[in-house]
Amino acid sequence: MKFLLFTFVGVRLLFLNSGKAIYRNDTSQRTFEEIKEEIARYGDVAKAIIDLAVYGKAQNRSYERLALLVDTVGPRLSGSKSLEKAIQIMYQNLKEDGLENVHLEPVKIPHWERGEESAVMLEPRMHKMAILGLGNSIGTPPEGITAEVLVVTSFDELQRRAPEAKGKIVVYNQPYANYSKTVEYRVQGAVEAAKVGALASLIRSVASFSIYSPHTGVQEYQEGVPKIPTACITVEDAEMMSRMVSHGSRIVIQLKMGAKNYADADSFNTVAEIIGSKYPEQVVLVSGHLDSWDVGQGAMDDGGGAFISWEALSLIKDLGLRPKRTLRLVLWTAEEQGGVGAFQYYQSHKANISNYSLVMESDGGTFLPYGLQFTGSDKARAIMKEVMGLLQPVNVTQVFSDGEGADINFWIQAGVPGASLLDDLYKYFSFHHSQGDTMTVMDPKEMSVAAAVWAVVSYVVADLEEMLPRS
Amino acid sequence: MKFLLFTFVGVRLLFLNSGKAIYRNDTSQRTFEEIKEEIARYGDVAKAIIDLAVYGKAQNRSYERLALLVDTVGPRLSGSKSLEKAIQIMYQNLKEDGLENVHLEPVKIPHWERGEESAVMLEPRMHKMAILGLGNSIGTPPEGITAEVLVVTSFDELQRRAPEAKGKIVVYNQPYANYSKTVEYRVQGAVEAAKVGALASLIRSVASFSIYSPHTGVQEYQEGVPKIPTACITVEDAEMMSRMVSHGSRIVIQLKMGAKNYADADSFNTVAEIIGSKYPEQVVLVSGHLDSWDVGQGAMDDGGGAFISWEALSLIKDLGLRPKRTLRLVLWTAEEQGGVGAFQYYQSHKANISNYSLVMESDGGTFLPYGLQFTGSDKARAIMKEVMGLLQPVNVTQVFSDGEGADINFWIQAGVPGASLLDDLYKYFSFHHSQGDTMTVMDPKEMSVAAAVWAVVSYVVADLEEMLPRS
Repeated sequence: MKFLLFTFVGVRLLFLNSGKAIYRNDTSQRTFEEIKEEIARYGDVAKAIIDLAVYGKAQNRSYERLALLVDTVGPRLSGSKSLEKAIQIMYQNLKEDGLENVHLEPVKIPHWERGEESAVMLEPRMHKMAILGLGNSIGTPPEGITAEVLVVTSFDELQRRAPEAKGKIVVYNQPYANYSKTVEYRVQGAVEAAKVGALASLIRSVASFSIYSPHTGVQEYQEGVPKIPTACITVEDAEMMSRMVSHGSRIVIQLKMGAKNYADADSFNTVAEIIGSKYPEQVVLVSGHLDSWDVGQGAMDDGGGAFISWEALSLIKDLGLRPKRTLRLVLWTAEEQGGVGAFQYYQSHKANISNYSLVMESDGGTFLPYGLQFTGSDKARAIMKEVMGLLQPVNVTQVFSDGEGADINFWIQAGVPGASLLDDLYKYFSFHHSQGDTMTVMDPKEMSVAAAVWAVVSYVVADLEEMLPRS
Repeated sequence: MKFLLFTFVGVRLLFLNSGKAIYRNDTSQRTFEEIKEEIARYGDVAKAIIDLAVYGKAQNRSYERLALLVDTVGPRLSGSKSLEKAIQIMYQNLKEDGLENVHLEPVKIPHWERGEESAVMLEPRMHKMAILGLGNSIGTPPEGITAEVLVVTSFDELQRRAPEAKGKIVVYNQPYANYSKTVEYRVQGAVEAAKVGALASLIRSVASFSIYSPHTGVQEYQEGVPKIPTACITVEDAEMMSRMVSHGSRIVIQLKMGAKNYADADSFNTVAEIIGSKYPEQVVLVSGHLDSWDVGQGAMDDGGGAFISWEALSLIKDLGLRPKRTLRLVLWTAEEQGGVGAFQYYQSHKANISNYSLVMESDGGTFLPYGLQFTGSDKARAIMKEVMGLLQPVNVTQVFSDGEGADINFWIQAGVPGASLLDDLYKYFSFHHSQGDTMTVMDPKEMSVAAAVWAVVSYVVADLEEMLPRS
């Protein structure tokens, strides 16, 4: 398919240069008023999508489909049997839904298992701590690591107190600023602790709210720095240990982790389409990732994103619509391990990058959307604002910045416009990568509204006469 | 002390009947305007208490004192060594604080330990479930109980489906209405399940919000009904099992509980006073309970209530104030097992009931108070409204109904006016009886405001010329 598309590109570019309106691909040839008028004509289609998704027979569908999958297979860690099963089920689901060109694209993905793990405070008092080992952490020896604790609240403090760290377990009690800033402690905490001679590191969970809830996630070892076991602890225990040392207590912890890294496993990105009627080689990509961490059900991260993306295509198909461009659904594999599936996809498809009008990923929750996040040229943004105006009936019309997403960034960085959904991130990061990421977090009505937004945006952009203009 | 006070009562009642203003105890002898004026004169004292508690040198004190205790001893289950240790520490704390008549009053309390416990879903898929055995539940045999699950959403449904329950594990997935209503499932769930032949019962946690958090608490067996093991599960797992059976799945769970009941243990209610200057035999009682469940730190339930009660006396003492009546602090033991310490106290002291002007208990959180909850006569309520008017500087002036509390109800039911604090119960029941009940929930400023309210109310009521009028 890659080469076929490449051929189409050449044809399209020829027509484009010839200036024929029917194939032209540069909005500069039309006034913005003309484009506005074109978009305004989608009002009825948008209403039909909204009616079907939010009030009609598809009401609750994305929620119910998601519940059935995640109740059946549970969480879907990269390399696990349950991810493999989920992919096979989704392949069948998409086939049975009547979508087109349903297929799997192979990817080699990391295979890490946490095994049994525990952390027990032995001094100043016995206290069994909740932990979650971090992704691709090594394990401890079977007898565990028993050591005194050094508590720090920042990398700076760790540097200042570097001579104290040797032979200890470093506990990070960094305050929560925001996810992108604070997550550095989860990702880099082990490496920084190892550099100053620590035996292990325990990192305060990167969470906006806690009911004694550890939150796992990926961490990265560094070439030339010893690998040490690393896990997240709860906000509560991190804060308590800070208080304990401020009162002069010596803390000793026994950490046991059975974590193991295995050889890469076989996996797949799952793809389905509604093939475009006029420019089938051109693509609007809608996506979410099917893998999750091995806790909870991966319902929110990113079951919701994956299932509203499927729902977008389902809604459009159910209404008998077929956009001019191809609407392509991709359910990524191994996003949590660093966008592994998405990187493979980009490598396989980037030759056709000029055919990608818009790449969309929902991976920040499918609660009631505040609006669309978008990254692209000013001209494209102006168009997106008009498109979002079609969502007035559900009162989700705003266009924010930062359309990036882990799985679509490869494309965005190469100049393709990108979009994601914005919702309540405080809520999102309360459950993120924790046992609390289950269907209980999800709301059928909110998912339906998110799906309607997703469907209207992807359909209209795929059906406009021209691709979105790039910078 | 009991008999000494009783003598005073006799004397006081004589004076009361004689109609002498100085000992009279019936507000009907004064107009409400006179009482209003008397209360208004406490404006400066109230400001001084507020200044010291919220802005002055006592700022953060109740929080810091609480943190030191609960970090040191952890949770304080009835019958545990840590509760014993906490009582000894508090006895020393109150002595060192310079309070009067610091002493311990013996109580026999229940001693139950949860031991190791686990629940694993074996069908339709492997899933380790978070559970917390319920107070005084029996354990399972060492090999556990492995049985099919019957999911019900109400006692009514259980009755309708009674023939299906025999030999099964009953799972209750009752929706959360409010605590007092929904807690019936935790308290009675095992008995109702046992009546229809179930082998064990698992109860959806009684919680307003969940991050996969089980919430423990007491449950009650019934004479003549077989005792079966019972634990709470998370809201998430209860909802998932409901969905699973609605999709036709058969659920099998293996439940293991090492819970054991031991002989009653020795414990104490912890008492301290500021002895009244004029009517030392008359009492305003302020209280919270020192015991907790064996999860988290018991910081919110009821460390906060116990420590703002102590703080109330500390603030009054620090300001060199001594009310006309005795201010008595009681830190109850074994509240969680059904107000065991409070019942013993009532038995020991009820002969002096006519000397109790007001009984106060904070056991619903010490977040920013919405106001005071009060149970008493209309006349007494009118007086409390005036007293709460003194708290205008911290904007906590409202008087609500329902002043009851587990440890003061014995007195309230016998006609003594009772008061408690009202705050954000949604937040409270998010952490209640869970691992999340830690210092992280607590806020120093909010505790200081709660302590100021507690101190002003208890001091002014203890210092008014007359006791609060009863019905």
